Amino acid sequence: MKLASLKSASRDGTLAIVDRDLSSAFPALESGFATLQSVLENWDDAAPALETTYRALIQRELDALPLKPDELASPLPRAYQWLDGSAYLSHVERVRKARGAPMPPSLYTDPLMYQGGSAAFLGPRDPIRLPDESWGLDFEAEVAVITDDVPMGVTPEEAAPHIKLVMLVNDISLRNLIPQELAKGFGFLHGKPGPAFSPAAVTPDELGDAWNGAKIHLPLLTYRSGTLVGHPDAGEGMQFDFRELLAHAARTRPLPAGTIIGSGTVSNPDAGRGYSCIAEKRVIEQIESGEARTPYLQHGETVRIEMFDRSGRSVFGAIEQDVWP
Amino acid sequence: MKLASLKSASRDGTLAIVDRDLSSAFPALESGFATLQSVLENWDDAAPALETTYRALIQRELDALPLKPDELASPLPRAYQWLDGSAYLSHVERVRKARGAPMPPSLYTDPLMYQGGSAAFLGPRDPIRLPDESWGLDFEAEVAVITDDVPMGVTPEEAAPHIKLVMLVNDISLRNLIPQELAKGFGFLHGKPGPAFSPAAVTPDELGDAWNGAKIHLPLLTYRSGTLVGHPDAGEGMQFDFRELLAHAARTRPLPAGTIIGSGTVSNPDAGRGYSCIAEKRVIEQIESGEARTPYLQHGETVRIEMFDRSGRSVFGAIEQDVWP
Repeated sequence: MKLASLKSASRDGTLAIVDRDLSSAFPALESGFATLQSVLENWDDAAPALETTYRALIQRELDALPLKPDELASPLPRAYQWLDGSAYLSHVERVRKARGAPMPPSLYTDPLMYQGGSAAFLGPRDPIRLPDESWGLDFEAEVAVITDDVPMGVTPEEAAPHIKLVMLVNDISLRNLIPQELAKGFGFLHGKPGPAFSPAAVTPDELGDAWNGAKIHLPLLTYRSGTLVGHPDAGEGMQFDFRELLAHAARTRPLPAGTIIGSGTVSNPDAGRGYSCIAEKRVIEQIESGEARTPYLQHGETVRIEMFDRSGRSVFGAIEQDVWP
Repeated sequence: MKLASLKSASRDGTLAIVDRDLSSAFPALESGFATLQSVLENWDDAAPALETTYRALIQRELDALPLKPDELASPLPRAYQWLDGSAYLSHVERVRKARGAPMPPSLYTDPLMYQGGSAAFLGPRDPIRLPDESWGLDFEAEVAVITDDVPMGVTPEEAAPHIKLVMLVNDISLRNLIPQELAKGFGFLHGKPGPAFSPAAVTPDELGDAWNGAKIHLPLLTYRSGTLVGHPDAGEGMQFDFRELLAHAARTRPLPAGTIIGSGTVSNPDAGRGYSCIAEKRVIEQIESGEARTPYLQHGETVRIEMFDRSGRSVFGAIEQDVWP
């Protein structure tokens, strides 16, 4: 099934069940659940009831409302936890190569992951507010999963059934604030003002055999102001799959229901598949010509992130955000 | 007024108004508010109603229930955002001196702050679960504030009125996991499994003239297994006050209501005031004798953190946690 949250007076939005084409919506409240967070905290009870409604919706048995993307919040408009990995090592390798830093062997066995701000996510069509273009605004196109309650110390195998929903992310980065921030040693704060997620979060079965239980084998498309700049396959080059990222996150603490785990910027070893963030493009330019020529996002530009299944249907709907002063 | 959350079937607990001595409690639901998060999102409406109840409670006009510390969750049992500063520079200076690292001048003007996990806090009397003593369990005694909605880009002066509540923190750290984690450059994850907060969160007026609008001028007492190990004054050596920490946190994003901002480990330049974390004690031993002798917390030990006002009353109640396997 596919779930979305409509903007409402509540900071948690209003949960809706949406059809496969994201063209119509039916309120989940009629199945007894007002918010996605409440569904995740009661998944075993909630999911069968919502699935029943979803079947009726896609068979046009319900009196659904037309769905307008502008009316959507992120599936979880806010969350108690957002942890973002960096599982695509070709991304990490390129960024380090540009500054002449070797790849420590531990990066091949120990995932990178940061604790991100989760108190207020942008909606999939919300503008990105950029007071100062010199901050170096970049997009990062990623995949993310949402969990139910994950016990502390799970193995990757034990973690797998806790993946309840999948969605896309634009992990917004302020590149020119990051070097000084990371040099202080305590991770990201100013440099990661908060991501936006795709219109829908979907159960893994919606992905068919493109989902192998731990990653998605489909291209992730990123457009900058209308031009396709990347189409890497999210199933290639993912050194740590979502089961492994969950187990890593849960090593010293349980992960409460509603925890979102991101993949990191999707990137393939084949540079011909383009890029999912401007920084990687600039790094390749730096390596090839000694100069990074592609600018970061300017006021008035747009970023669009989307993924299509093998039948050509948009799985999650598109993240599409303008950059505003 | 003083507010606390009773453990309940809800993950957000049940909000209670508690008396000055933390001996009795009255349900906030009778004033129309079930959780502290909902109060913070509607502060201007909620606070006057709760204050009226608080006045009636302390004048014994209400039929209150006895309050048992074991029944308490943290005031916010979970939160959307927990950002912890490191504002006491004598702590930072000692830690860096022990490893021969100089103090970069920027640390005197630019606060250190990390994004912490906030999805499930321990209650003030909950045991700390430590599967492996070799992880190096340490306490960190701190002060924290809770905000209402803080706009992006506020100045310290503009930030001040957004400080709605004050409480104490035990920012639990796994010292032996931290060096490798910070070396990866993305901040804390395994090393900070999640803090515990004091029984009560109090409005700043409860502190009288010990609160100057931006910091608390009172000693913070820390006991390890019954022995007083630190009593630094939380108003001394705080290089960045709470107004400045809020402004720092809000530089590139708004801070939604319910954001918790921590001071970092309280520490005074006068080492005779003892220490608020074991790591600092070990650093002083390392500098003085070449060897850190004080061990980290072992199974069966207890940490107690408390602050008394000038009349000798416990302001927030005590955090008191046993260490369990």
